[in-house]
Amino acid sequence: MVNHTVKAYDRELDTLERLIAEMGGIAEKMVVDAVDALAAADTVLAHQVVATDPRLDALQREVEDLAVMTIAKRQPVAVDLRELIGAIRVAGDLERVGDLAKNIAKRTIKIGAESRVPRAIVGLRHMNEVATELMKDVLDAYAQRDVERAREVWERDVDLDALEDSVFRDLLTHMMEDPRNISFCAHLLFCSKNIERIGDHATNIAETVVYLVTGQPMPTERPRGPQETDVDVEAAGGDA
Amino acid sequence: MVNHTVKAYDRELDTLERLIAEMGGIAEKMVVDAVDALAAADTVLAHQVVATDPRLDALQREVEDLAVMTIAKRQPVAVDLRELIGAIRVAGDLERVGDLAKNIAKRTIKIGAESRVPRAIVGLRHMNEVATELMKDVLDAYAQRDVERAREVWERDVDLDALEDSVFRDLLTHMMEDPRNISFCAHLLFCSKNIERIGDHATNIAETVVYLVTGQPMPTERPRGPQETDVDVEAAGGDA
Repeated sequence: MVNHTVKAYDRELDTLERLIAEMGGIAEKMVVDAVDALAAADTVLAHQVVATDPRLDALQREVEDLAVMTIAKRQPVAVDLRELIGAIRVAGDLERVGDLAKNIAKRTIKIGAESRVPRAIVGLRHMNEVATELMKDVLDAYAQRDVERAREVWERDVDLDALEDSVFRDLLTHMMEDPRNISFCAHLLFCSKNIERIGDHATNIAETVVYLVTGQPMPTERPRGPQETDVDVEAAGGDA
Repeated sequence: MVNHTVKAYDRELDTLERLIAEMGGIAEKMVVDAVDALAAADTVLAHQVVATDPRLDALQREVEDLAVMTIAKRQPVAVDLRELIGAIRVAGDLERVGDLAKNIAKRTIKIGAESRVPRAIVGLRHMNEVATELMKDVLDAYAQRDVERAREVWERDVDLDALEDSVFRDLLTHMMEDPRNISFCAHLLFCSKNIERIGDHATNIAETVVYLVTGQPMPTERPRGPQETDVDVEAAGGDA
């Protein structure tokens, strides 16, 4: 490639990087706000989360269009091609993290003034701290192309799966204690599943970082806890 | 393009078509088998569903690799480029449909001999008939590039959303009637959500068919039922 072409190519990669950083920031904030809104029964904040989602969708389309255009124009190979495919994958995961946060926010709006069980939310908040941490770390790993850090995130997702399992049992206990808790806790079951799936997307991004830097996929099976806690997990390699 | 290049290109498109048809067949069967296994407490069949999933993942990777390779090599524009991007999208949706079927199968294994509430499964079976019908129709629409049929699927997904809402309330009733039903019905809540999401992927594929043929995206918002039943729906355009 002649020099000005290389420069144009670098500019395209920089733009992709910037778009993905913006998506990461928005997705992280949506997750935090969604669970805050749920815990505080704050429907105004919940509506804000829902209103943010189209921006994330638009950014994802921008990443896809730019990456595909660059693939067609530059015919990149090896690491350059992996960078572009990686950008498409990470954008896809971040868009879905936004959807999951939006789901929690919509549920908060739906629950509304329904009789709430404040102590049932404690486990969920804990799950969300772990999920937010995973997201933050994997986005740093992506920004710095840090394979070691990505692998760490990938291994830590098992904690979130175990937590979800314990929240599931906890919510069932609240339901059995008092039938008036059933409806609220049923909604929380879905919220905890949404948070667990945010962790799955963090591990997907971790896998993309490893693929991007090394050209190698991660092993097909992720580490699991002692129990079969992987129901609803989106297949490791299949969530590109 | 000289003639032999055009022929090679057509062969690539044919291969993609064939791979996606194979993925569609596998995904459809996984969905039917998963719900049959759930209804009959058939853990052998459930294990078979789980064991099928890696094949779907491998096919998705094959579609992605071939499509990206073709984009880089042929630098297609307009409808040709849309064909290739469409193939990547449809493969992504089918892979996730497989994951959802696998989730139901894993839950069947997890539930095992737990006290079952057979009448609670009736609504789920009905949902699954609708979801399977949507999948079948949208795959036909894709194979025939039939925009009208795709639009029909897109509009019919609202029925599935409404059904999920009614199954949700039905399951809550069973839980309130007898605390011994709570654990089993909580698992069914997740299964019904999985089936509803299969419908979301059918509408995603419908959107891809429209985009592929017309170059136009569908309107951002899908039709909704009278109630706010769109919690957990993956954003229409964002699930590429």
